Amino acid sequence: MHLESVSWTDVDDVETALAMVPVGSTEQHGPHAPLGTDTLNAETVAESAAERFDGPIIVSPAVPVGVAEEHRQFSGTLWTSESTFRAYVRDIVGSLAFHGFDRIVLVNGHGGNIASLREVAATITRNDDAYAVPFTWFEAVGEHSSRMGHGGPLETSLLQHATPGTVHEHRLDDAAAKGGDQWGDWEHGVNLAFESAEFTENGVVGDPREASAALGEELLDAASDALVSLLETVSERNMEALSQW
Amino acid sequence: MHLESVSWTDVDDVETALAMVPVGSTEQHGPHAPLGTDTLNAETVAESAAERFDGPIIVSPAVPVGVAEEHRQFSGTLWTSESTFRAYVRDIVGSLAFHGFDRIVLVNGHGGNIASLREVAATITRNDDAYAVPFTWFEAVGEHSSRMGHGGPLETSLLQHATPGTVHEHRLDDAAAKGGDQWGDWEHGVNLAFESAEFTENGVVGDPREASAALGEELLDAASDALVSLLETVSERNMEALSQW
Amino acid sequence: MHLESVSWTDVDDVETALAMVPVGSTEQHGPHAPLGTDTLNAETVAESAAERFDGPIIVSPAVPVGVAEEHRQFSGTLWTSESTFRAYVRDIVGSLAFHGFDRIVLVNGHGGNIASLREVAATITRNDDAYAVPFTWFEAVGEHSSRMGHGGPLETSLLQHATPGTVHEHRLDDAAAKGGDQWGDWEHGVNLAFESAEFTENGVVGDPREASAALGEELLDAASDALVSLLETVSERNMEALSQW
Amino acid sequence: MHLESVSWTDVDDVETALAMVPVGSTEQHGPHAPLGTDTLNAETVAESAAERFDGPIIVSPAVPVGVAEEHRQFSGTLWTSESTFRAYVRDIVGSLAFHGFDRIVLVNGHGGNIASLREVAATITRNDDAYAVPFTWFEAVGEHSSRMGHGGPLETSLLQHATPGTVHEHRLDDAAAKGGDQWGDWEHGVNLAFESAEFTENGVVGDPREASAALGEELLDAASDALVSLLETVSERNMEALSQW
Amino acid sequence: MHLESVSWTDVDDVETALAMVPVGSTEQHGPHAPLGTDTLNAETVAESAAERFDGPIIVSPAVPVGVAEEHRQFSGTLWTSESTFRAYVRDIVGSLAFHGFDRIVLVNGHGGNIASLREVAATITRNDDAYAVPFTWFEAVGEHSSRMGHGGPLETSLLQHATPGTVHEHRLDDAAAKGGDQWGDWEHGVNLAFESAEFTENGVVGDPREASAALGEELLDAASDALVSLLETVSERNMEALSQW
Amino acid sequence: MHLESVSWTDVDDVETALAMVPVGSTEQHGPHAPLGTDTLNAETVAESAAERFDGPIIVSPAVPVGVAEEHRQFSGTLWTSESTFRAYVRDIVGSLAFHGFDRIVLVNGHGGNIASLREVAATITRNDDAYAVPFTWFEAVGEHSSRMGHGGPLETSLLQHATPGTVHEHRLDDAAAKGGDQWGDWEHGVNLAFESAEFTENGVVGDPREASAALGEELLDAASDALVSLLETVSERNMEALSQW
Repeated sequence: MHLESVSWTDVDDVETALAMVPVGSTEQHGPHAPLGTDTLNAETVAESAAERFDGPIIVSPAVPVGVAEEHRQFSGTLWTSESTFRAYVRDIVGSLAFHGFDRIVLVNGHGGNIASLREVAATITRNDDAYAVPFTWFEAVGEHSSRMGHGGPLETSLLQHATPGTVHEHRLDDAAAKGGDQWGDWEHGVNLAFESAEFTENGVVGDPREASAALGEELLDAASDALVSLLETVSERNMEALSQW
Repeated sequence: MHLESVSWTDVDDVETALAMVPVGSTEQHGPHAPLGTDTLNAETVAESAAERFDGPIIVSPAVPVGVAEEHRQFSGTLWTSESTFRAYVRDIVGSLAFHGFDRIVLVNGHGGNIASLREVAATITRNDDAYAVPFTWFEAVGEHSSRMGHGGPLETSLLQHATPGTVHEHRLDDAAAKGGDQWGDWEHGVNLAFESAEFTENGVVGDPREASAALGEELLDAASDALVSLLETVSERNMEALSQW
Repeated sequence: MHLESVSWTDVDDVETALAMVPVGSTEQHGPHAPLGTDTLNAETVAESAAERFDGPIIVSPAVPVGVAEEHRQFSGTLWTSESTFRAYVRDIVGSLAFHGFDRIVLVNGHGGNIASLREVAATITRNDDAYAVPFTWFEAVGEHSSRMGHGGPLETSLLQHATPGTVHEHRLDDAAAKGGDQWGDWEHGVNLAFESAEFTENGVVGDPREASAALGEELLDAASDALVSLLETVSERNMEALSQW
Repeated sequence: MHLESVSWTDVDDVETALAMVPVGSTEQHGPHAPLGTDTLNAETVAESAAERFDGPIIVSPAVPVGVAEEHRQFSGTLWTSESTFRAYVRDIVGSLAFHGFDRIVLVNGHGGNIASLREVAATITRNDDAYAVPFTWFEAVGEHSSRMGHGGPLETSLLQHATPGTVHEHRLDDAAAKGGDQWGDWEHGVNLAFESAEFTENGVVGDPREASAALGEELLDAASDALVSLLETVSERNMEALSQW
Repeated sequence: MHLESVSWTDVDDVETALAMVPVGSTEQHGPHAPLGTDTLNAETVAESAAERFDGPIIVSPAVPVGVAEEHRQFSGTLWTSESTFRAYVRDIVGSLAFHGFDRIVLVNGHGGNIASLREVAATITRNDDAYAVPFTWFEAVGEHSSRMGHGGPLETSLLQHATPGTVHEHRLDDAAAKGGDQWGDWEHGVNLAFESAEFTENGVVGDPREASAALGEELLDAASDALVSLLETVSERNMEALSQW
Repeated sequence: MHLESVSWTDVDDVETALAMVPVGSTEQHGPHAPLGTDTLNAETVAESAAERFDGPIIVSPAVPVGVAEEHRQFSGTLWTSESTFRAYVRDIVGSLAFHGFDRIVLVNGHGGNIASLREVAATITRNDDAYAVPFTWFEAVGEHSSRMGHGGPLETSLLQHATPGTVHEHRLDDAAAKGGDQWGDWEHGVNLAFESAEFTENGVVGDPREASAALGEELLDAASDALVSLLETVSERNMEALSQW
């Protein structure tokens, strides 16, 4: 049940403790993919999981701007500070919990959000009468996860499958040519770079020419099945034990 | 140009200082209208103005959750604290300005956001190398503005015209029957109520049966024309004078 | 009972839940009226209402500096940030409530404080075991309210009546000559200006030559009667209902 | 020049960098002295120094509520958190400095404010293009300073001299009988108490029967002369040296 | 050069831009290892690198308490909130940079600090006229890194080698018996646990019986050599390029 | 029991409510004494008191960086803002209290920390289910306290006695020659200076040639005996009374 399209009376009739908050970003994804890639993909995965899940579940609107200052050298990228991002997510989860939707999965589409989502989920779980965990779709696609770049084969494929028309196919060669090979500039376990422009000329990491709608479908299957499974676990997890101490 | 659907290279090619940030809310709008009403309507007006405006203009994704704790007694309503809301909007505007889009109109669809938007717009304009003003669509529809309630004829009409199917027509009688007559519980210029549930049984204020798609079209014309005019003014306003002091 | 002039033992003997916090500002009011206009007038109205009210009531010292950065181009204007202002008011109300004075009217004399007072009153009422509402005197003087400007007929009249000698009568012609006609620089419901200097040369809005002590007396009658009535309502309002949800 | 009673044009005509901000408190001062004692006395000393000072000087309205939670067990005491207090003072000083009044003495009447005033004065001096120092009147009355208690001979005397009628003379015996001998509950240089009620039954420390208007006059002479001397020093202090590093 | 043991004049004589800030934690490390494990090990690695580095380098005192609330169920564990931790580290780095030591490696010994150190290092590098990167020693020991647990073979070995006597050898069997196999409680890339007590009975993860002083020596060699190499890179990294945008 | 060197199981076996948190600073102490003077001395006193105290007591690691911006003109000085310092101390005390160690003495070695420690101890005692008081060793050495300067006879003596080798004896003449006579630049009870460099050329106040290990031993005896006595008092203080109000 997508909150934005139902009335409060519809929500009032639902019996569930489960909710999902899609979390995206508006940031460069190379010359071929839209700035909204992370939001679109997070929404896609959340929607697919909601359909596959056996039972009612609340889906909030997506958080559209996240932790993305590292992409600021590429035009159109929007960002918020980490602390504001965490506060915004915490408030949204808090209002869901106020209504009794207190088992929440933050369905994330952006690598830059991961650390902050983990931090705020811990804060919520310890202090706010709710249990929240972040799920990042491209970390739950099995062996494909290792191919995650930025605007690379995984993200591009999911767009091609789920939101066709959003990818500029004719720019893929260019995207690949000036992209980087690896996320970050590493030495001895340390990423020396704080800006993506330090290691990619056009914002891409990975080769988006390896993307396909077929792969996208496969990724969506994997990610949404994983998410469904996670939702069941989150729904049933015994939180009493946590409060024992 | 909607940021979420274009690439950073597309944005990089645009020459403009103008941007719009639609600002909505996810909150009860009675039994007949969706929780996403304010976001949908803000997006509608921004999109219409972008089409009518003579020249390129940036449109960011909508801020989906705003200052709406006053509706918390109605299920599904989401909210953020005023301070977090202002911080989130300020960061988004700051990143737009970083790219040179430093004349910004915050296109608002929710009454509860107005005071905070005014405050943050002043903060931005004084401190952040950008000029930002909030525009609330239902305050710019001429004499119709006086009929604004909540989930009433104005908001319902705009939904019926621009996003048909979002309104439950068969619930309009019920919506009207249990709605309130006036926003707030007033005495001597003071609103004694801090929760909408203090003055409306089902969250509605005004009679949504007076709504129509035709009225919605008229409202959209008025609001988007006003917004186009405002954009021109904002674009040309001399900000040097402000810095003189 | 004015707190600053009584001892704690005197306060301890009082049985009431009611308190007033006058809230002013130190800001330009044109060449003819003092920077303390808003504080003086708020104190005047609070004092008059305390006298007229049938029963004991606590009156705190006035908050002397408020949200007035918009007047900074005029010398001597003092201001605090909105967030500091709200924190200061919240703490004062919190300490009143600690002693059992938990029905509080914030008696305000400055337009720039209104939005912040509404926000902090809501915060207090929802979170702090107290019920607080803001009352702005010039919004409670019936049809006269529409003539409110800045340093105009209303504020000047009240000074002339209640604190004679504070108005420079011989400067009224000059005040009127270089004043503005309207508060703000409006287009389609949007105030384009964030500084009063953008729409008034000498800080005045409205014609203070229309002021008189007689009008001031009438305004004080109206405002303090309204405030007395409000105090009774605030005293009796059922707050249990609010906590039901 | 007291800001609250002059117009902005009057302030605009003044040529000085000097300003004073009286800082008081609204807190218990025993059964005999008013809750406003600290504010009244701070205003008295500031006013006297302004009269004695050879040259123009700005005097802001007094800060009426300070750091006084330690007196909360006595009814009517108001307080703000230390951080809010510092923020409020910093904003006021910042707005004075905005107009060029950037050599500021914080004329303090309350012991509980001292540490916070020192902290905020350092913050201002290091960061805000102003030089601010706190002056506490009862620390500048020579050997009398050692007799400072709370509601004791010093504060009571100054009230008797400068604001006659504010002291309940017939309650002095009672005030003395149930007062404490010493501020705090000390062991090895540590004050074990955080509330004044831990060491005084009625809020008094020291014997107010030793007070007299004559002593008050002497104290005012001493304090205001010291303050005049300090103002001259502050006016002339070379701040360039500070910026050398 | 360890700051705590030299005088300011000694520091003044040093010519370098390089500094290290050891960052530890005071938290449970099973029954066999001390609560100070992370601090001790961070200090050990920093000291060893300082000795091996060819040139002068500043070493600050270690930050002794970090992000460790997840271990709160085990007695003696200390922690600070993430935001306070970041503020504390940022201030320390800022004061180093004030003296010209503006190329800083945060030498970390605790997994729970990693995300916050990355965040604050980015904040510093973007805003504070310094370049800071976090280095976590157990992520820079080659293939051994994969054996990292908590109070497991890696941490225990380094203690045995560098600070002999700190490990209770006779408790190793018990430590192993009731320890966990893996850090976290994972499902589909999501760690469902926010407290270490959810996946380890005695706080240990990994088998500390596999530890040895010889392994500790090897680990120290690897980590400190990596750190020396990193220091050279940090020293020479061109930060002008970063400011180009 | 020093937390850093014991395991959580050791702490779990202890039965006490008492804890000490040594609080130091890393700041200039003249050419002859180390930057770590305040931390070293705080640790010395805490350790000595722990040994003399009859019963178990928890000792946390020392807070190594405090409120010391006033020494920034002397190289190597580290500092944190007052608010961050208070937050860091509050979190540490809060985690001690979480484990039941809720009677805490903050054993301080730095004058610049005193006001902030008093403030945070009050905050903790009023709000955090713990009772905390700050103890500053050089304020508890009887008549010697009056000789406290900075890097002067007291601090230098304690170093010479307890941590021999940390003082550069051959620099004492130089230290004395260019030191200041008095802490601060005073007029009428006001310290006009915010930086120690305004009143001491080399950071020293007082004559460190008057220091001796023998005096250091005497000081340590006095301070640690006082601290032991304080611990007993803190242990037994009736906090119920405080909550009565």
